Amino acid sequence: MGVNSNRVEHFDSHQTIIKIQTELSMPPMEIHKVRLPPETTTFNKLKNRLTEIFFPDDPLYRFKNQTWFMKLLLGLQYLFPIFQWAPEYNLRLLRSDVISGLTIASLAIPQGISYAKLANLPPIVGLYSSFVPPLIYSLLGSSRHLGVGPVSIASLVMGSMLSETVSYNEDPILYLQLAFTATFFAGLFQASLGILRLGFVIDFLSKATLVGFTAGAAVIVSLQQLKGLLGIAHFTSKMQIVSVLISVFKQREESMRKPKLFWVSAAAPLTSVVLSTLLVFLLRHKAHGIAVIGHLPKGVNPPSANMLYFNGRYLALAIKTGIVTGILSLTEGIAVGRTFAALKNYQVDGNKEMMAIGLMNIAGSCSSCYVTTGSFSRSAVNYNAGAQTTVSNIILASAVLVTLLFLMPLFYYTPNFILAAIILTAVIGLIDYQAAYKLWKVDKLDFLACLCSFFGVLFISVPLGLAIAVGVSVFKILLHVTRPNTLVLGNLPGTQIYQSLNRYREALRVPSFLILAVESPIYFANSTYLQERILRWIREEEERIKANNESTLKCIILDMTAVTAMDTSGIDTISELRKMLEKRSLQLVLANPVGSVMEKLHQSKILDSFGLRGLYLTVGEAVADISSLWKAQP
Amino acid sequence: MGVNSNRVEHFDSHQTIIKIQTELSMPPMEIHKVRLPPETTTFNKLKNRLTEIFFPDDPLYRFKNQTWFMKLLLGLQYLFPIFQWAPEYNLRLLRSDVISGLTIASLAIPQGISYAKLANLPPIVGLYSSFVPPLIYSLLGSSRHLGVGPVSIASLVMGSMLSETVSYNEDPILYLQLAFTATFFAGLFQASLGILRLGFVIDFLSKATLVGFTAGAAVIVSLQQLKGLLGIAHFTSKMQIVSVLISVFKQREESMRKPKLFWVSAAAPLTSVVLSTLLVFLLRHKAHGIAVIGHLPKGVNPPSANMLYFNGRYLALAIKTGIVTGILSLTEGIAVGRTFAALKNYQVDGNKEMMAIGLMNIAGSCSSCYVTTGSFSRSAVNYNAGAQTTVSNIILASAVLVTLLFLMPLFYYTPNFILAAIILTAVIGLIDYQAAYKLWKVDKLDFLACLCSFFGVLFISVPLGLAIAVGVSVFKILLHVTRPNTLVLGNLPGTQIYQSLNRYREALRVPSFLILAVESPIYFANSTYLQERILRWIREEEERIKANNESTLKCIILDMTAVTAMDTSGIDTISELRKMLEKRSLQLVLANPVGSVMEKLHQSKILDSFGLRGLYLTVGEAVADISSLWKAQP
Repeated sequence: MGVNSNRVEHFDSHQTIIKIQTELSMPPMEIHKVRLPPETTTFNKLKNRLTEIFFPDDPLYRFKNQTWFMKLLLGLQYLFPIFQWAPEYNLRLLRSDVISGLTIASLAIPQGISYAKLANLPPIVGLYSSFVPPLIYSLLGSSRHLGVGPVSIASLVMGSMLSETVSYNEDPILYLQLAFTATFFAGLFQASLGILRLGFVIDFLSKATLVGFTAGAAVIVSLQQLKGLLGIAHFTSKMQIVSVLISVFKQREESMRKPKLFWVSAAAPLTSVVLSTLLVFLLRHKAHGIAVIGHLPKGVNPPSANMLYFNGRYLALAIKTGIVTGILSLTEGIAVGRTFAALKNYQVDGNKEMMAIGLMNIAGSCSSCYVTTGSFSRSAVNYNAGAQTTVSNIILASAVLVTLLFLMPLFYYTPNFILAAIILTAVIGLIDYQAAYKLWKVDKLDFLACLCSFFGVLFISVPLGLAIAVGVSVFKILLHVTRPNTLVLGNLPGTQIYQSLNRYREALRVPSFLILAVESPIYFANSTYLQERILRWIREEEERIKANNESTLKCIILDMTAVTAMDTSGIDTISELRKMLEKRSLQLVLANPVGSVMEKLHQSKILDSFGLRGLYLTVGEAVADISSLWKAQP
Repeated sequence: MGVNSNRVEHFDSHQTIIKIQTELSMPPMEIHKVRLPPETTTFNKLKNRLTEIFFPDDPLYRFKNQTWFMKLLLGLQYLFPIFQWAPEYNLRLLRSDVISGLTIASLAIPQGISYAKLANLPPIVGLYSSFVPPLIYSLLGSSRHLGVGPVSIASLVMGSMLSETVSYNEDPILYLQLAFTATFFAGLFQASLGILRLGFVIDFLSKATLVGFTAGAAVIVSLQQLKGLLGIAHFTSKMQIVSVLISVFKQREESMRKPKLFWVSAAAPLTSVVLSTLLVFLLRHKAHGIAVIGHLPKGVNPPSANMLYFNGRYLALAIKTGIVTGILSLTEGIAVGRTFAALKNYQVDGNKEMMAIGLMNIAGSCSSCYVTTGSFSRSAVNYNAGAQTTVSNIILASAVLVTLLFLMPLFYYTPNFILAAIILTAVIGLIDYQAAYKLWKVDKLDFLACLCSFFGVLFISVPLGLAIAVGVSVFKILLHVTRPNTLVLGNLPGTQIYQSLNRYREALRVPSFLILAVESPIYFANSTYLQERILRWIREEEERIKANNESTLKCIILDMTAVTAMDTSGIDTISELRKMLEKRSLQLVLANPVGSVMEKLHQSKILDSFGLRGLYLTVGEAVADISSLWKAQP
């Protein structure tokens, strides 16, 4: 600390360079200048900022330094990822893809029928939705393991949102029209997000929100489906159903934990459907009380572009349903795609996935399909069955095609209760109480967001519950900005490290200095708070000094390392604080302002008022230089 | 950098202590442990957090270590600040207060009449509002310089919001009822904010928003008042009015810059009123075209509690108007109070001021007053006229009382155009184009918020314009959180300082290391972005290394100093990133995680996976320790 700065070389107010040549007495110590970031025009700054907002992944980096032929090929590969792997596709890969494709088909057919029922749609729509969308995705999608089809959350949300206003039983045509229109808008919304590179909006659905939301939705669905199950209570004893459910549920849990056993849970729905259908068929003359699916039309997806509904009183409902289901299914699809890409160490391009999923839904809405996306259960089965490329989706589509063309009459006797049971096991599995417990343990406010979305969805409504949960998450960010942490720092003896006195017991206060670290950007939303909080720290420090008879406080150092941004209110606050402290003969010093903050301090001319000894690169240098000055001029 | 760590003393997974005894070869270097914050219960943590949110100013600190008598006295002083200064009040102070009180009265009387017109209320209500509220404030308020009364923005907003639905000319009783009811709800809202210690909500109206909002409101009012001015166009030539306006305006500008001349602008309205009234009185038989105020009733405020309107179809309008005018007037009052308190170096308690202003408005609504607050122009006049205590408000109220009781007939011939001119000069002075220019220079996004609120108020509506501006401000915060900065750091030669390579040209890359600083909390809203951005930095660094034939990348150090918070998504991201890099044989190291982040990393058991050499107190120690290890085990 015994540094004598004997000559101030120059002080350039434009570059704000503080260069102080030091004569060394104890350890060699140089005082560094605090630099402004390299100068750049407003236009360039704006360009960089926009690039960082919309193209953080630098999507064109592959095209740099390539011949035009390669650029064309890369462009084609970018638009249709099938060109990336098609040249190297071989029989070995095909065998894996056929096995996995057939495996997911065995899951997809009963799931499709069940989830369509969940959306209050005719079961056949669920099968249609497992045919066209996988084909489209296999052309456009960049994930190699995503299993595409209807998913429980989006089905449930669509069902509950549309049924609030329109009943399928009363007006089936209108209901179908609205469902396809909602699907169209979901696709349009998804594709637009991708094209406009606004993919970050789905990041606002935090994991905490989704855990709560999913659990709430699952409870609603379970309650709805219990009707279907209780309809057979007089046919067999309740206990058995419960035990069946529990065993199915347990098996599912088991196989989630041991991925190798995943085919068990994958095969379970198909097995249940086959066995129960057979049973009802054999008992068809004895058990009349059992509701069955009944007649399903044979044949591939009929076109439905003529059913899209672009004017009339329900248009707003269709758009709202489309946006909510679109954003939910997008979140699931992207998250699932990223999960499996991370496992196999390849990249999934978020914005491109959005375009693929969006186009798939737009195409779906014109071919009698409702909202589809990358489904977690299908993708997990796909991955575990050894899928290598999206060809598995083509195989899946082919299997569904065969079913549609030839096997539909076989489903006549499939009892409704088995579909209810499939749905129940699926949705109960979505209640992730362990994740909720982890949220509680690690982050109480995340847990609150989770609870809000759970109860919001359960007791208010799906879109409002979701909005509340997003609101809570955003409020959490704002709260952290509004009431940021401030820490008193001390020196770790024998080092230039300054750390929190509260956390590091060995850290020591530096006499006559109060060193504060502000742990947040300084914004309009916290500038008043921070000013008052800093003044309180000073007051408390002065009281402490008085009580302990220590040397008087002379200098406040603000460690600005974590002040990553500042707006005009923040600048006013710093300037005001300096003036107020000056009146009380206290010096205010800033240590290590980041680039953008430094720039703003400079532009607003505040820096000039801080003068020669108001700005340092590190807290250590500030303490050394100022205390050496005090020694020189006592 | 030549440090050999030859013995790992112990690794305690609970305390996560990495204690490495080092044998020194070159400069002495000790590797420090990264500590968890002191352990505390969930309840205590919650208590501390809530205290920090609601009681950041520690309002009870005065009561600590006091006798019960002192506590009682302090409590009384807290509730009624008059007890603080009353014992020391003397004749000298009284003289100052009388002078300043009479000075603001000369401004307040014409202002009161004009602003009431601005709110489409009868002029007499403006005078009533300058009588009761100042008396209440002088008992409860903690600012010594605040001049209380109607203000232009709140008057304007009340007028424009109520007039959209109800016209004063068509149903004057209903309009008055709604105005008093809105005042009541404004007061209730203000007092509740104070009592619930939610004062920080007014911080969300940033200075940028207010600059734009005020300018937009001023333009609206000016256009409205031009009607009043053009009504006299046939009486005198337009040019003269414009020149009068310009001269009045210039004078005002002048006196704003030279506070000593403030009495000139303070006296100007009264002088204009007296002179013009006299002129119209003398010309009363010749100039019939001039609209005058006309008969004003003599006497003090009649009670109006019976006019409060608590049910019926306009209740929602009254509540909405009350909340908007309440929040606007509160913002002005608190900001003005703080400004003058800062000039005289005393503290204004924000939450207490809210209660004082709120109670003053509740009382006002029962005594024929409309929304009042601390007015900037009155307070400035008050301050410059030498006010010492809130007694100046009592003098003001007394002067208004005398006017109400005896001088009302004198205002009969006051021409309406002079009131319009007073309003115009007042509101045009509110257009702070210099502040807007400064916003543009220092912070483009703040300027955008300012523009949004300006055009929103001008072209949409007052509450919606305000909501848009707050939305833009909040969006700015979210944008900063969603797309945070990441920097590549390098070493300043010969030091332990690591700074941005881009900003510090002398900083050098450390071979085989990539040192990244993340400048934001890691939240659900940015965790995906950050993961992709970090992977892109690594990819670019590897390409650079390849192109320059440097030594291969082996270790990524994340400087977490500015990562001031982390939620469960952030934790998952860090954990995932570590796994992904491990697969690519890259080591991920965290440097200097702050207390709360460290706690969460520990609770989620992620720290264990980082192991012995995954966590350091500074980047310097991480580089030194890891590179010495590489030397020992090549």
